Amino acid sequence: MFAKGIRWLYQSPPRTLVLGFAAIILIGAVLLSLPAAAAPGETTGWIDALFTATSATCVTGLVTVDTGTHYSVFGQIVILLLIQIGGLGFMTMATLFAFFLKRKISLRERLILQEALNQSSIEGIIRLVRRVVYYALAIEAAGAILFTSRFLFQMPLGKAAYYGVFHAVSFFNNAGFDIMGQFRSLTDYASDPLVNIVTMLLIISGGLGFVVLSDLTDIRHSRRLSLHSKVVLTMTGTLILVGAVVIFAFEYSNPATMKHLSLGGKILSAFMQSVSPRTAGVNTIDLAGLRQATQFFMIVLMFIGASPGSTGGGIKTTTFATLLGAVWAMIRGKEDVVMFKHRLAQERVYKALAVTLLSLTLVLIATMVLSTTEDHFFLQILFEVTSAFGTVGLTMGLTTQLTLAGKIIIILMMFIGRLGPLTLGYALTPKSGRELYRHAEGKIIIG
Amino acid sequence: MFAKGIRWLYQSPPRTLVLGFAAIILIGAVLLSLPAAAAPGETTGWIDALFTATSATCVTGLVTVDTGTHYSVFGQIVILLLIQIGGLGFMTMATLFAFFLKRKISLRERLILQEALNQSSIEGIIRLVRRVVYYALAIEAAGAILFTSRFLFQMPLGKAAYYGVFHAVSFFNNAGFDIMGQFRSLTDYASDPLVNIVTMLLIISGGLGFVVLSDLTDIRHSRRLSLHSKVVLTMTGTLILVGAVVIFAFEYSNPATMKHLSLGGKILSAFMQSVSPRTAGVNTIDLAGLRQATQFFMIVLMFIGASPGSTGGGIKTTTFATLLGAVWAMIRGKEDVVMFKHRLAQERVYKALAVTLLSLTLVLIATMVLSTTEDHFFLQILFEVTSAFGTVGLTMGLTTQLTLAGKIIIILMMFIGRLGPLTLGYALTPKSGRELYRHAEGKIIIG
Ligand SMILES: [K+]
Ligand SMILES: [K+]
Repeated sequence: MFAKGIRWLYQSPPRTLVLGFAAIILIGAVLLSLPAAAAPGETTGWIDALFTATSATCVTGLVTVDTGTHYSVFGQIVILLLIQIGGLGFMTMATLFAFFLKRKISLRERLILQEALNQSSIEGIIRLVRRVVYYALAIEAAGAILFTSRFLFQMPLGKAAYYGVFHAVSFFNNAGFDIMGQFRSLTDYASDPLVNIVTMLLIISGGLGFVVLSDLTDIRHSRRLSLHSKVVLTMTGTLILVGAVVIFAFEYSNPATMKHLSLGGKILSAFMQSVSPRTAGVNTIDLAGLRQATQFFMIVLMFIGASPGSTGGGIKTTTFATLLGAVWAMIRGKEDVVMFKHRLAQERVYKALAVTLLSLTLVLIATMVLSTTEDHFFLQILFEVTSAFGTVGLTMGLTTQLTLAGKIIIILMMFIGRLGPLTLGYALTPKSGRELYRHAEGKIIIG
Repeated sequence: MFAKGIRWLYQSPPRTLVLGFAAIILIGAVLLSLPAAAAPGETTGWIDALFTATSATCVTGLVTVDTGTHYSVFGQIVILLLIQIGGLGFMTMATLFAFFLKRKISLRERLILQEALNQSSIEGIIRLVRRVVYYALAIEAAGAILFTSRFLFQMPLGKAAYYGVFHAVSFFNNAGFDIMGQFRSLTDYASDPLVNIVTMLLIISGGLGFVVLSDLTDIRHSRRLSLHSKVVLTMTGTLILVGAVVIFAFEYSNPATMKHLSLGGKILSAFMQSVSPRTAGVNTIDLAGLRQATQFFMIVLMFIGASPGSTGGGIKTTTFATLLGAVWAMIRGKEDVVMFKHRLAQERVYKALAVTLLSLTLVLIATMVLSTTEDHFFLQILFEVTSAFGTVGLTMGLTTQLTLAGKIIIILMMFIGRLGPLTLGYALTPKSGRELYRHAEGKIIIG
């Protein structure tokens, strides 16, 4: 039966992914709409249940009702399971995609693989999946223990452990859900080093992707990183650093956000607000109080997002790095996009361009449509749509005020934002290395 | 001396372009700051004089003071001359760039050209320049006669002719300056078919670029269009049509803009507001009254802009077409970007990507900076910056309220927006067709 499942998956991985996620979301929505899922005195409408289930399964974290006070413990555990299934399931699938893609070269190799799948290689896949799950659970467990030790100062052991597990799972999966209550996220912990650092480590490790995690743990044996890992780690580090500097520069004197914090608190906050939009969705300062420039900068970070095969969303760090590489090559008058002394195939650059442009078009059209259904300022709407697309979950306050039409649009954006880039990246691979027939070259003037 | 000038130009065309434009702007600013340039009772500060001179020379059309009432006839004629020099000069230079670029292939060909430049080919260049000027003046004259005939119904011949010439020159050069007074632009003529159609024809013909105009007039002899012309004409037509449909759909029921117009007036307005943002900057309806979705859509049109070697700005229709072509190729699983049965070289696609990303980065950074110096909503600021970058000249009302810092930023954006894409397009050409040494291919995961 497992072999049958793998073959069905192999026949059309994107189909499996989309149908699987849709099924999980619907089951989650039914469970969340049960009276037992709501806190005493609360009831959950079908659209809010669907919204929450989509947000949890797509590890987005946008919420129309407050997770900490609206849902019962049963409801919160359903949400936690959806996050774990959505995050881990996606990570596993993405890893398998990359595994399949490698073999998507010639018909002959494909036949060999299909044969292999019926025999011994199934074990290879099982081993791969097991390893993904093992990594995820190990990191989550470490995070949960550290969080619990911190929360013990404020609450009894049982509650502290529950809070620890919930937030560790939520943050490693870049889900951004919290049960602090009143939509507070981590604003109470803006200057708390332990909470901030553990949160950031969970978010970052979840956002690197399985290939990189695997590479890093193997480094003692292999003594080298793959090109993919080098690009992901460099880009992630650079984005976090540049992001923190920009946010610090715009906000350190802003009375609505950072002015009252100590210098250490300011720096910690700047890093946290730089890490989180890609694509955790946790915030320790009030986003509505940020300067417009910072809010817009965060939109850019949300759009870029995390790395391929991770629990995070967005167009991905490697896509962004490829675009930068192409620009840099043209500026230097070079024909090839080169990273760490390796040339990228033209096809990868075109693919990065296609993923970016299609994503941008989707975000802009959704923003235009939403700006006709919601009575809010453009920047707030763009922020909300990008947050949904990038499965980030940050909001300037629009989510709870959405109209029915607005909720449906955001649900669709979360779903497409989660599955779109991976599916696109998989689908947009030229069928053959070379065209059999090529047209003559023509010239047009650019710029 | 002309030969010496051509040789200097040939040595570094971008340098010539940038220095030439800067010199013209400074001369214009000095003239405009003279008391004789202002209307009785008015005085022009140095920053407003510089702003107006930059706006006119870069054919942008953003104005901090009202052209019709603030400046004397002398001042208006200075503005008109700056528009004509800026528009025509740019068109000529861009044509020469394309002419030079063709020869930018090998050292041998370059040597041949340099030799040629000292001898007979100078005549070829003179012929080329003469042809550009001839086309421009012929189209402007036709527009001026038609406008004058319309204005004769409202004013005496002298004034009608002056108005006719001013607006024909301004619109063909996509400058968007008007002398109707009170920043009215053409809002009094929203439903006037003659004014609208002549204006649109002037804008469109100015925006096609010299190569296309030349191709079109030669078609009786050649019986075919170049690939470049086909792409420009198809893209221009598509953008105008799609733009008009979208604007009509968003605005026909909007009481602040189109609701009071007849169906014919609505359609005329939709087309006018679709043509104008790319990149004329004339408006017949109140832009501040537009829905947010329409305003944002106009920002996209402004960013795309007109065609290469034209009087218009933006990243250019061919750049946009190349990006679309690359996305389309990836969707269909093809390796080559194909237009009208011709393949585009990889280098052109990378160049289009580079021009677009650098332009986008510039617009976004300028918007972020301006949002810290000006106390306005993000969408208004983004609109203003994109309008300056695309040399469009539309505004939601911000221009007249700019702070000193804001004026300087917008002046810089107009200058960079005018010269940047062409200079980039020229500079971003790989020095040699093939690298002597290529790195091994590496793989990273996209999406
Ligand atoms: K998230
Ligand atoms: K203009």
